[in-house]
Amino acid sequence: MILTVTLNTALDITYRVRELRPYASHRVTSVTERPGGKGLNVARVLAALGHEVTVTGFAGGPAGRAVQDQLTATPGVLDALVPVSGSTRRTIAVVEETAANLTPEATQLNEPGPQITPAEWSAFQDVYEGLLPSVSVVALCGSLPPGVPVGAYAHLIRTARAAAVPVLLDTSGEPLRRGVAARPDLVKPNAAELTELTGSHEPSQATRDVRRRGARAVVASLGPNGLLAVTPEGRWRATPPTRVRGNPTGAGDSAVAGLLSGLIDQLPWPERLTRATALSTATVMSPTAGEFDRPTYEQLLSRVTVTTEATAA
Amino acid sequence: MILTVTLNTALDITYRVRELRPYASHRVTSVTERPGGKGLNVARVLAALGHEVTVTGFAGGPAGRAVQDQLTATPGVLDALVPVSGSTRRTIAVVEETAANLTPEATQLNEPGPQITPAEWSAFQDVYEGLLPSVSVVALCGSLPPGVPVGAYAHLIRTARAAAVPVLLDTSGEPLRRGVAARPDLVKPNAAELTELTGSHEPSQATRDVRRRGARAVVASLGPNGLLAVTPEGRWRATPPTRVRGNPTGAGDSAVAGLLSGLIDQLPWPERLTRATALSTATVMSPTAGEFDRPTYEQLLSRVTVTTEATAA
Repeated sequence: MILTVTLNTALDITYRVRELRPYASHRVTSVTERPGGKGLNVARVLAALGHEVTVTGFAGGPAGRAVQDQLTATPGVLDALVPVSGSTRRTIAVVEETAANLTPEATQLNEPGPQITPAEWSAFQDVYEGLLPSVSVVALCGSLPPGVPVGAYAHLIRTARAAAVPVLLDTSGEPLRRGVAARPDLVKPNAAELTELTGSHEPSQATRDVRRRGARAVVASLGPNGLLAVTPEGRWRATPPTRVRGNPTGAGDSAVAGLLSGLIDQLPWPERLTRATALSTATVMSPTAGEFDRPTYEQLLSRVTVTTEATAA
Repeated sequence: MILTVTLNTALDITYRVRELRPYASHRVTSVTERPGGKGLNVARVLAALGHEVTVTGFAGGPAGRAVQDQLTATPGVLDALVPVSGSTRRTIAVVEETAANLTPEATQLNEPGPQITPAEWSAFQDVYEGLLPSVSVVALCGSLPPGVPVGAYAHLIRTARAAAVPVLLDTSGEPLRRGVAARPDLVKPNAAELTELTGSHEPSQATRDVRRRGARAVVASLGPNGLLAVTPEGRWRATPPTRVRGNPTGAGDSAVAGLLSGLIDQLPWPERLTRATALSTATVMSPTAGEFDRPTYEQLLSRVTVTTEATAA
């Protein structure tokens, strides 16, 4: 069993309109809703690959109910979200009908998320500790809602390590900085997060720096340049067969799912990276934002290139 | 007891953002929600004036629950909304933080509303017929959701007339055209609706035409030019004391509430028009869209001018 943690879950709503014009009134021609927040996206991809996943974090209000209703209907996903008095945030992506499906030209409106009380944060930690004995790996994903202490991930990493459960961290800013110092097994920053954390624009140097700060392994997702992995077992770069065009929404979450899937299946690093790159690329190429196309994924598995990176001096 | 009908109820959501830029990602800094749809707005104003109001129409899904939760908490308002399997529409007004409260510069995103089934439309008609014997006046307000026949208001007007309950109609397009032909006691078009219905840009001529088409009385709301009333008892124009600046959202609904309130209190036409104009103007001047400022309203009552209009040849 894989556990994903999403403290700032969301109901992701997509509106289609003809053309978005500021200060005008718009008829929304179609409305779609699905559970969101990085850990829930990761869980959906894992479930589609045939893994069993438990999701935890917070859910509240009408949007939280909508999220839980949809999770309950997803085979392979177990809902262990903790109820809160505030309302789960909504995110609204406004997409123009004239936009091609493959272009990411959405106008995004993101609610701030519910204020978490100290009692709710404490209730979550109890649930989390209770789940750890039955899971093989835990992924801590995304931003923190208001009220959750900035050192939350550092604390959750120490708890997982004490229970001997490997932990992956995918977040940004100060929660990432503090989380890395708590010695997670794996972090998956993108290029911007890597630079923000280390001050370096050079991925090879920055990933080494992240290991020095405490991470056992680092897999950086570098967009069209694929993945760069720096681990105790070696250094690799995985690249997709061609530069693909499409919508990068959710590509990073698919990479996380690929890494977790490979870890659970006890694959060696090059195969884990192949799986993560193929999933991530198949997500960019999918007509639906954040979904991956299975035939494309399976074709890509044999076409991803993994090369050993020279160890820097 | 006053009855307002809102077939296309809404949950009106207001988002504040710093600046709305198409294709960018925005943090929403504040979220407010309230029941919407013309008949619910009219009911809220009537309740604030001390009247008892029953609201009916359709409600469904999470947005419908949110609407009903808030209505239940509003003193003076009785909830008789009919449950539907679809979800009540949301409307989102995106307002920039830099915008003054009094300017109407919202970017509006309106969901289409639930598909109403024939069984749901039939259930509504039973509820409506059951409510009529206990009400003194009924107001039919706003657009029709998908699935409701275009002649719906015409049918509801005939049912009200058969029960000897006076009926006010405030809608637009084909539902207005068919509704007027069913001989309602009062219609309240704005300038655009008047022109669309009659083809005439001249309010004096257009209002006479609406009476010829079947309405017993017409009160046209002409924005800053106040109200023009054409009734069997006479013709009047009511104008606010000064041209006011502000947000016209909900001003028409406040005028409807003023007309209903004056009718229930058996006021002569000039006093009904004074009340409607004062409420409408106080709504434009309110810092919160769609609300009215009570002290402003009370001051305006003695400052609205009502003049008799010459009868046209």
